[in-house]
Amino acid sequence: MSKYDVIVLGSGPGGYVTAIRASQLGLKTAVVEKENLGGVCLNWGCIPTKALIKSAQVFDYLKHAEDYGLKVKEASHDFDAVIQRSRNVADGMSKGVQFLMKKNKIDVINGFGKLKPGKKVDVDGTEYSADHIVIATGARSRELPSLPQDGKKVIGYREAMTLKDQPKKMIVVGSGAIGVEFAYVYNSMGTEVTVVEYLPNIVPVEDVDVSKQLEKSFKKAGIKVMTSSEVTKVDTSGKGVKATVKTAKGEEVLEADIILSAVGIKTNIENIGLEDVGIAVDRDKILVNDYYQTNIPGYYAIGDVTPGQALAHVASAEGILCVEKIAGMHVEALDYGNIPGCTYCSPEIASVGLTEQQAKDQGYDIKVGKFPFSASGKASASGAKDGFVKVIFDAKYGEWLGCHMIGAGVTDMIAEAVLGRKLETTGHEVLKAVHPHPTMSEAVMEAVAAAYDEVIHL
Amino acid sequence: MSKYDVIVLGSGPGGYVTAIRASQLGLKTAVVEKENLGGVCLNWGCIPTKALIKSAQVFDYLKHAEDYGLKVKEASHDFDAVIQRSRNVADGMSKGVQFLMKKNKIDVINGFGKLKPGKKVDVDGTEYSADHIVIATGARSRELPSLPQDGKKVIGYREAMTLKDQPKKMIVVGSGAIGVEFAYVYNSMGTEVTVVEYLPNIVPVEDVDVSKQLEKSFKKAGIKVMTSSEVTKVDTSGKGVKATVKTAKGEEVLEADIILSAVGIKTNIENIGLEDVGIAVDRDKILVNDYYQTNIPGYYAIGDVTPGQALAHVASAEGILCVEKIAGMHVEALDYGNIPGCTYCSPEIASVGLTEQQAKDQGYDIKVGKFPFSASGKASASGAKDGFVKVIFDAKYGEWLGCHMIGAGVTDMIAEAVLGRKLETTGHEVLKAVHPHPTMSEAVMEAVAAAYDEVIHL
Repeated sequence: MSKYDVIVLGSGPGGYVTAIRASQLGLKTAVVEKENLGGVCLNWGCIPTKALIKSAQVFDYLKHAEDYGLKVKEASHDFDAVIQRSRNVADGMSKGVQFLMKKNKIDVINGFGKLKPGKKVDVDGTEYSADHIVIATGARSRELPSLPQDGKKVIGYREAMTLKDQPKKMIVVGSGAIGVEFAYVYNSMGTEVTVVEYLPNIVPVEDVDVSKQLEKSFKKAGIKVMTSSEVTKVDTSGKGVKATVKTAKGEEVLEADIILSAVGIKTNIENIGLEDVGIAVDRDKILVNDYYQTNIPGYYAIGDVTPGQALAHVASAEGILCVEKIAGMHVEALDYGNIPGCTYCSPEIASVGLTEQQAKDQGYDIKVGKFPFSASGKASASGAKDGFVKVIFDAKYGEWLGCHMIGAGVTDMIAEAVLGRKLETTGHEVLKAVHPHPTMSEAVMEAVAAAYDEVIHL
Repeated sequence: MSKYDVIVLGSGPGGYVTAIRASQLGLKTAVVEKENLGGVCLNWGCIPTKALIKSAQVFDYLKHAEDYGLKVKEASHDFDAVIQRSRNVADGMSKGVQFLMKKNKIDVINGFGKLKPGKKVDVDGTEYSADHIVIATGARSRELPSLPQDGKKVIGYREAMTLKDQPKKMIVVGSGAIGVEFAYVYNSMGTEVTVVEYLPNIVPVEDVDVSKQLEKSFKKAGIKVMTSSEVTKVDTSGKGVKATVKTAKGEEVLEADIILSAVGIKTNIENIGLEDVGIAVDRDKILVNDYYQTNIPGYYAIGDVTPGQALAHVASAEGILCVEKIAGMHVEALDYGNIPGCTYCSPEIASVGLTEQQAKDQGYDIKVGKFPFSASGKASASGAKDGFVKVIFDAKYGEWLGCHMIGAGVTDMIAEAVLGRKLETTGHEVLKAVHPHPTMSEAVMEAVAAAYDEVIHL
């Protein structure tokens, strides 16, 4: 029986990163993967969707070429080629992880891993043991009882990125990151898209100003948005699909070719032996302490299967921390209040910390500043005036409670807020950090200035 | 005679920002402008060039549409329309400044301002007085004796952004930000461009790795690059222009329609009354202390006319600081070692702090980390794999000495390094600030990890 220091179950951005860091720290490591290296993120999530989005963005430029003084005759998209490019990017990244596993001398065990008591893992009949077993099996698309996925007319994100034919009409149920990203891509390529959201605002985890701005931008782009609405019934018996939607005004029946169900995720914790080992689970999540130890010594869990935000970068950070602790390093627990969230539709969304409402609900006396990109020189020059940066500070101590951005390129701009908050910056320090001109990032400085009544360009 | 608390000479990004901040602080303020509000930056610099660059970038997408699964028949550019869009953006921004002046109750005095002793300014025959006079008259294109500008065949940046006809061949002399930005724009639109740089590397103020990468990218794009080369003679007698270039290998004669001289700037300090008042000048710059006071009480100078970096954001920061001090606020002197510099060609360049060579020259024992975008998932998905992030830390105390970026969107990413450095971050803190996945900004985290031998994706 092969014996390792660390066996990682699952090779997504949680698992493979954990394995690499473990190996760096001198631990003999193996990773168990039932499908493709890189997991959902590389193969069916973050990466291939970003490739689709890039095609959609470039297509938008083609359609609006005249705005930039350019001329195009007959711009069109080749749906198959767009999909194929996305698959190629994903395959390339997966091969990259393969290379990293080899380079870091990590054994890749292909198959379905099942935990056994005594710190063992059974992979399709072969047993492996380790001093430390890290569960990083991730999650999949959640199915609503009222919206069972048949993979053809009612689909999840996996099918949505490999459709053979482009649908003429699509209903997207759920308006979290996955829902609005696909809504953007398909609308851009000419599909008639309706987004149905149960809550009163789309991208409901974001600050309400961001939600309102996205709704405005989406409507301008031709996407139909239905909020406070629920799909109660689906009829797939005909040629297409009919969805009964309950709205504040009553019931409405929508017809489409495809319904994309994007109502959240379900963790992959079935049949992996949690019960055999006795690992505690609560509400679909494996319970862990600050160092990702489960209730059973030697067994750890990180990523989507644990209660933290189900995001690739959280999984990676948790995995690194988990094995650094195993290796005896002094580690500081992850601050889940300082995790950025990004949505890559157009305009992009990025945020970290508390929304204005959350800050108020928590009793803070706050200072709020908002700077619209319509007042930014770089945004004007780039033709990207939609959106804004909004910042929230604690009035008393100057703590940067939250930062919310919507606009072109903001997913690359939120890192400033994350680092600033980690370093316990005050607004004054952000204001006096000279931001280069002309950039979109000046909007951060200006939003902070607005919070303190020192804004220049408003 | 009208009396003000503050009169600002010049309404560029130094002057108009100074005026707004002064007004916010309750000071009765006027700004004197001989031409257009917004100065060079808004009218002939930062903003209109970014508009041209955006057109060039979109044109690049059109030309490479197939890479994204898209089809275009006959992509072309309308040179006049590209130029016109750029002018419209500039005009819009200038109107914006006009609005800001009005909103902030700042008097705009049109005309040429000349300083007089006794804290007075003469504007075309009318005298105004103030308790504080801020000189913010900026700079213009520098002329080399060997390369006199005739505005037709040998031009500066102003003419380069309003040419009637697109040149077939262009020689760009000087490869600072202005030179390489125009080289990028014109090359993208089909002009045959040669860049001639006197020093051994293009963008010579950047880290040498950045210079090498840009040279590689430029050559791939079809731009001819001549380094360690000097234009010694220009002959404009024929139809086009002939430039004699002295290179390491001997002399070469280049022919072109246009030569763009982009060899730096010359401050606008002539005929503004410096001598009458007795204001001290050294090597083309007005001498000031930490609070921008000249040697004559009541007279201040900020922006390009002073010794700090000749950048719009420096001018703005100096102006704000100058009037905050005048208003009696407690201010901290500007840290000129933490000023970011950006170049908006493609790939973009952004940097702050010391280059590797400078750090070594200053005797630091350093840790260097570099992360190429070719290893970034977001870059792969976006088709933007050129470039890297390079970071330099002091090995002893962990100080972040320098950050150098080249690649898509990096001009919006450098703010993280500026703020981090202002807050005296260590590498470890940057590493443990969770950067969102998948973004280009992860490359910062990974470069830091590389410096400390903890990089995951290499």
